[in-house]
Amino acid sequence: MAYSLQELSDFEDIRTLKHRYFRGIDTADLPLLATLFTDDISVEYRGGGYKVKLAGRDNMMDFLANSFHSGTAPMHHGHMPEITLTGADEAEGIWYLEDIFINLDDQLHTSGSAIYRDKYRREDGVWRIARTEYDRLVEVVQPLDSKLQITAHWLANTGRKPHERTDIGHFIQWGNG
Amino acid sequence: MAYSLQELSDFEDIRTLKHRYFRGIDTADLPLLATLFTDDISVEYRGGGYKVKLAGRDNMMDFLANSFHSGTAPMHHGHMPEITLTGADEAEGIWYLEDIFINLDDQLHTSGSAIYRDKYRREDGVWRIARTEYDRLVEVVQPLDSKLQITAHWLANTGRKPHERTDIGHFIQWGNG
Amino acid sequence: MAYSLQELSDFEDIRTLKHRYFRGIDTADLPLLATLFTDDISVEYRGGGYKVKLAGRDNMMDFLANSFHSGTAPMHHGHMPEITLTGADEAEGIWYLEDIFINLDDQLHTSGSAIYRDKYRREDGVWRIARTEYDRLVEVVQPLDSKLQITAHWLANTGRKPHERTDIGHFIQWGNG
Repeated sequence: MAYSLQELSDFEDIRTLKHRYFRGIDTADLPLLATLFTDDISVEYRGGGYKVKLAGRDNMMDFLANSFHSGTAPMHHGHMPEITLTGADEAEGIWYLEDIFINLDDQLHTSGSAIYRDKYRREDGVWRIARTEYDRLVEVVQPLDSKLQITAHWLANTGRKPHERTDIGHFIQWGNG
Repeated sequence: MAYSLQELSDFEDIRTLKHRYFRGIDTADLPLLATLFTDDISVEYRGGGYKVKLAGRDNMMDFLANSFHSGTAPMHHGHMPEITLTGADEAEGIWYLEDIFINLDDQLHTSGSAIYRDKYRREDGVWRIARTEYDRLVEVVQPLDSKLQITAHWLANTGRKPHERTDIGHFIQWGNG
Repeated sequence: MAYSLQELSDFEDIRTLKHRYFRGIDTADLPLLATLFTDDISVEYRGGGYKVKLAGRDNMMDFLANSFHSGTAPMHHGHMPEITLTGADEAEGIWYLEDIFINLDDQLHTSGSAIYRDKYRREDGVWRIARTEYDRLVEVVQPLDSKLQITAHWLANTGRKPHERTDIGHFIQWGNG
């Protein structure tokens, strides 16, 4: 049994969509990110020390712009997609995340992994993320080692500076369990 | 020169097969894992401080169920596949592994990389892993840092608890070289 | 809108080309690497503590053979490709790198991420890397922890030994900014 040209093309485009998402967050490329979500996107992250829940592209953009700010050095790599086409313009995807998040303000180093379960929708011929959620598999938090030197830090330039940031506490619930 | 629809579909399905494998081991999803191997799978891992050798799906399931237990926090990410179709129902694949393995029982943190060389076979229309071996490129072992906090740990729930584990020492040879 | 068989095949082959590159550098597989570049390849890496600039396959091979030597334990993983076909035999690609570079001679551990922007050209039916550049997103340098044990080290065997190495300082500019 073989996939059709259209199906294979959809696999390609959906993967590239998510690849752009990860590049977008870690470079704070807000114009790129704004093109990747449906208007009614819903988000739910079940982290270790945090939970995130929000809906709507504007809230998502608000959340991302203030999470990936100039005081952070993040790395988010989405791996090993398992894409399923569920309709002519609908698909689902499982991804396995590896992430490192250095918070320079708090001097914390968080690393870990998570399984994403996404839904994608094609609108006007373009695939977008309509739903994204993840569960943490492993999350490890450490104080930033004093002997560690940060010799490149992209978000220092492109991320929001302290005076530009707005509060996103209403999207986040802190604490374990 | 272009691949056929069937060949492109095979690339997709073989990649997804291996993606499921990595998600399966790190979440201790034994029902998923049981669908991924041929009955006569053969396995050979040439690690740094260990070698693993076994044959047969039952032994593989025994090995995996007792390796990814509740006292471990593992991350296994398979990257950059190079798939070659070697027959109508046979294929080979090279993958580049990055892995982190936190052993909470022994308080050890092992990380590293390896090159996999796999063989796949299609049975009843479904691709399965028929042979898998790897060679370590880099392996680094450290005591677990006392300042490190584990704030998410999936296998604590899904992995085998101490009283459920059975001995797999006969599959493993410890020690360097 | 669907891609053609040829376009989908090109995506496959260009990905595999870059996958081979990463496997080639981390295993010091010089015969493999020599097949992956156009004769006129141009390279520009804008790292944190270093910049690299060079042109031509011979210089690239010289640079790689002396960078991935027996005193290093490297891991370079290229993720999340965004490939664009720009002509019948020309393409561009964005990749997101995660890398770890253990320098045993200097007892330094460098890790980080970067965004690659590549150009590929098909010559005699084979895709090759014609241009590659990257910008560092994050780069972290630490002294190698004294409690860390290296239990596998592939390049100790395949990398150039001290007496085999030649100077590549003319390709590199050290220092930040």
